Amino acid sequence: MEERRTNEIGQEGVSRRQILAGTGALAAGAALSHIGGLISPAMAKDGSTEKWPWPYEKLDPEKTAALAYEEWYRVFCGAAVISSIFGQLREKVGEPYKSFPIDAYIYLEGGQAGWGTICGAPAGANMVFSLIIGPRKPLSDNTIAHEMCVDIMEWYSQSLMPVYMPKNPKVTTELTKTVSNSPLCHVSVGKWMKAANKPLVSPERKDRCARVAASVAYKAVELLNDWKDGKYESTSEFNCGKLHGITGQTNCNECHGSKIPQAPQPPPEEPKKEAKKA
Amino acid sequence: MEERRTNEIGQEGVSRRQILAGTGALAAGAALSHIGGLISPAMAKDGSTEKWPWPYEKLDPEKTAALAYEEWYRVFCGAAVISSIFGQLREKVGEPYKSFPIDAYIYLEGGQAGWGTICGAPAGANMVFSLIIGPRKPLSDNTIAHEMCVDIMEWYSQSLMPVYMPKNPKVTTELTKTVSNSPLCHVSVGKWMKAANKPLVSPERKDRCARVAASVAYKAVELLNDWKDGKYESTSEFNCGKLHGITGQTNCNECHGSKIPQAPQPPPEEPKKEAKKA
Repeated sequence: MEERRTNEIGQEGVSRRQILAGTGALAAGAALSHIGGLISPAMAKDGSTEKWPWPYEKLDPEKTAALAYEEWYRVFCGAAVISSIFGQLREKVGEPYKSFPIDAYIYLEGGQAGWGTICGAPAGANMVFSLIIGPRKPLSDNTIAHEMCVDIMEWYSQSLMPVYMPKNPKVTTELTKTVSNSPLCHVSVGKWMKAANKPLVSPERKDRCARVAASVAYKAVELLNDWKDGKYESTSEFNCGKLHGITGQTNCNECHGSKIPQAPQPPPEEPKKEAKKA
Repeated sequence: MEERRTNEIGQEGVSRRQILAGTGALAAGAALSHIGGLISPAMAKDGSTEKWPWPYEKLDPEKTAALAYEEWYRVFCGAAVISSIFGQLREKVGEPYKSFPIDAYIYLEGGQAGWGTICGAPAGANMVFSLIIGPRKPLSDNTIAHEMCVDIMEWYSQSLMPVYMPKNPKVTTELTKTVSNSPLCHVSVGKWMKAANKPLVSPERKDRCARVAASVAYKAVELLNDWKDGKYESTSEFNCGKLHGITGQTNCNECHGSKIPQAPQPPPEEPKKEAKKA
């Protein structure tokens, strides 16, 4: 994986920034009437919603974050992010958001059913980007959703969280803030619990996670609004695959210490599909 | 988190095993005509597909695995698992599967856009369980999808992978098998790459991941078929929250070494909502 933002099969994504977002509304129950043209309908397998981009109307980040904060107490982190964005688009746009089963995504909490893998907030945002903007290579040449996923996971990992402060917080004492250096629930929540000295079941930890979900929803809408305005630019530096030859995060030494393993590399005699850029 | 399978807010899920799955088919484009009754329609927020369970017809695990194996080479691990199951249900059942945007889930590959978090195969299976069976507490008392998520992540972590052997493999040499002890892409792929001494871009690594996706699709359909037959029983031992008071996996010492931190615990004076079981 020598190239920037390569995908699973080692192909480099062709960046198409400042691409215009699709517009238009859909009649409820009908197939998508507006096809944004980023992906040929021929690329779509056979689902009636597999034509991208989905219609998007700009949302207010502050309102979205406030909704996500409240929704956390109903459906937890992942579904809160999805609900805060898709819930508004159900009103502003209609289908296909009305038919999207938001509440099922409660399982994203706790890093998916409590396993501490990816935090539900970026997991929810990743899904929202991908559903609205559409898939990347090899299904299309549009890499924007992929870039936004990378952006928000890097932003999540590097930010002093929670960023968002609710107007009417359920916990009124000042909350500890921490940098996770990882999009993983276990790492993000664990570092915060250690710094705050608060247990998982505490109101403070819950409100921290609600504010994290709100922070991510705010950021996600900023990215989507930029895309809608044709001015989205990827900002992330993440490129772990290029450095290490394996999918991964940027906090290698937290688990590996100083002994970061060298991933097996392609043999010199293996033919390269693309010339290596200097 | 004192109770088994507690959720994000520390409530214990009430297990309702051997519950009958919903049946029936849906007219394309219409709202769900059959409501299985596990979750009251009043629980659904407002989405037309937010009524559970979705209609399910039993699938052939072998055929599903073969489809997932082939689909990996089109849409990678997460979307391959989703496509192998929902693609068949589009034919056998129709809606809401026909309207579900399977291909968008290509972003699940590489642990979500290459970040090495949860492997797309269990991430896809978790979504399939949750969409078909429906959300758990506090949205319903049905904990089956949650239990299946835990089951498949534990099974994934403990199995000598890949389990599934395609009838016509794209790589015909014998592939190394490894146990990941984790549902994380980085850990699962990294351990395999080390054992096999094959780079990420190798045909062997790709075919290994295609077979892992197929293995998970096979297992997922076995669980769903058992549920449909009213004989699903959770088999997993995972209960890390109970042991450590934090969301997490079962391989604590792989990152923490012997110094596994003690999570902050609730103070003795904090009132308990539920009596602690001895």
